[in-house]
Amino acid sequence: MNVKVGQSMKSVSLKTENAIGVFDSGLGGLTVMKALMRVLPTEHIVYLGDTARVPYGTKSKEAIIRFSKENVTELLKHNVKIIVVACNSSASHALDILQKEFPLPVIGVIGPGVRKAVSLTKNKKIGVIATQATINSSAYNDKIQESAAGIRVTSQACPLFVPLVEEGWFNGPVTKSVAETYLKNIQKAGVDTLILGCTHYPLLKTVLTKVLGRTVKLIDSAQEVSREVKRVLEEANLTRRGKSQPSYKFLVSDQPQHFQRLAKRFLGYNIHHVERIY
Amino acid sequence: MNVKVGQSMKSVSLKTENAIGVFDSGLGGLTVMKALMRVLPTEHIVYLGDTARVPYGTKSKEAIIRFSKENVTELLKHNVKIIVVACNSSASHALDILQKEFPLPVIGVIGPGVRKAVSLTKNKKIGVIATQATINSSAYNDKIQESAAGIRVTSQACPLFVPLVEEGWFNGPVTKSVAETYLKNIQKAGVDTLILGCTHYPLLKTVLTKVLGRTVKLIDSAQEVSREVKRVLEEANLTRRGKSQPSYKFLVSDQPQHFQRLAKRFLGYNIHHVERIY
Repeated sequence: MNVKVGQSMKSVSLKTENAIGVFDSGLGGLTVMKALMRVLPTEHIVYLGDTARVPYGTKSKEAIIRFSKENVTELLKHNVKIIVVACNSSASHALDILQKEFPLPVIGVIGPGVRKAVSLTKNKKIGVIATQATINSSAYNDKIQESAAGIRVTSQACPLFVPLVEEGWFNGPVTKSVAETYLKNIQKAGVDTLILGCTHYPLLKTVLTKVLGRTVKLIDSAQEVSREVKRVLEEANLTRRGKSQPSYKFLVSDQPQHFQRLAKRFLGYNIHHVERIY
Repeated sequence: MNVKVGQSMKSVSLKTENAIGVFDSGLGGLTVMKALMRVLPTEHIVYLGDTARVPYGTKSKEAIIRFSKENVTELLKHNVKIIVVACNSSASHALDILQKEFPLPVIGVIGPGVRKAVSLTKNKKIGVIATQATINSSAYNDKIQESAAGIRVTSQACPLFVPLVEEGWFNGPVTKSVAETYLKNIQKAGVDTLILGCTHYPLLKTVLTKVLGRTVKLIDSAQEVSREVKRVLEEANLTRRGKSQPSYKFLVSDQPQHFQRLAKRFLGYNIHHVERIY
């Protein structure tokens, strides 16, 4: 399949042997990469973490769109056949634009998470927690209203969750106290399903369950988005057929060593080579 | 005075009518700007907040140096006669390089804060709290050892303080609990003087005093750096002589409206025009 790339009009060839390109503002998207490795164990994957400009969740729509376009342009240099926008802030603001401007499949984390939540809720009350940028975009609320009628959505921005995860404070009294503060309205609304609308948040599952109780189902979109990627690759006849081991490549715009050190927390194993870009 | 600008070798003319250029990774440097307005009430000031790439404190030395050079290059377009590096992470890693590469006076926040702390300590035990980047640089420790012998320095990175300030949680149980965790070693060391090595931290003075008690003196370098700027301008014969009202200009690389909204917390008054750059 030969296609032309957005405004730059370079020719791009999508081959089954090409990699899945994943990008995130930093480390959080590695939860998505981990799910992709499980669901699509033969696929090559190139991961890009924009660690020089992390976080995206406190930045403007315009900045997020600009950064996202630059990330896709960079991934295209590494022979990718599909793009996964693992960053919720980016998927909320830039997905439509990336799909319009780049002629290869671009999949975001929002849609798959929403479909799962809508299928699971019984009392039709869904909560969404995410960064300020994602909440401001109203992307989750809009997608939920599109996909099912009569669902009540309660949204809450949780700006301290990302720094708490990056500091490694996954549990303990401070994190619990921050979670209690942020989740007050979500609890009051009586939701039975909560979308974790930021790829960092799955690392806070224990404390979130402590605060909300076991009856509230937590939706981690990493799993859902991986299944969607599998479906799209199959439909486009782009699934890798090779039987050799797949390769995993890691690109970051800053602090490769820091990334390497923290990646284990997300992936569960050590990575050995991280390349610096930009 | 005619000088050439670093590697770009453009000619720069330093005139008394020119402005003081201040840069920071975001909003925090406004505490320095406020002090400059008080100490040098007739000077024009141009403030640059690199809000698209904030925070610097979690980034690498190389990234911080690159961002800092770009900020000075941008300020030079706005007729400045002196540069104030209001960001501690930037002053720790990039000050020497900026002073070498740009031919106008460049003043950082580290030196003046250190001189004040050294002059105030009685038991020769000084604490330093700052971002991870500033602590990693060892800039405060080195400067203290240079300026006085036999002083024991206890340093602590406090990565959650900046997000707490940006979230507006200046006080309250969560912030107190975070402060107690971070300040444990500082307390154990028995310091009588604590350098607030990040321009955001003066907004946490109340909670820091609650945790440490009134006997520990808190050093906010904004005041100290302003006096240094005054001295340097006088020595270089660059003090503004005009009697007309000074002008204040604000440049940011992202979210001008957010900056405008939050600036009041730092400056104590509303600003009306913020320009977007980059």
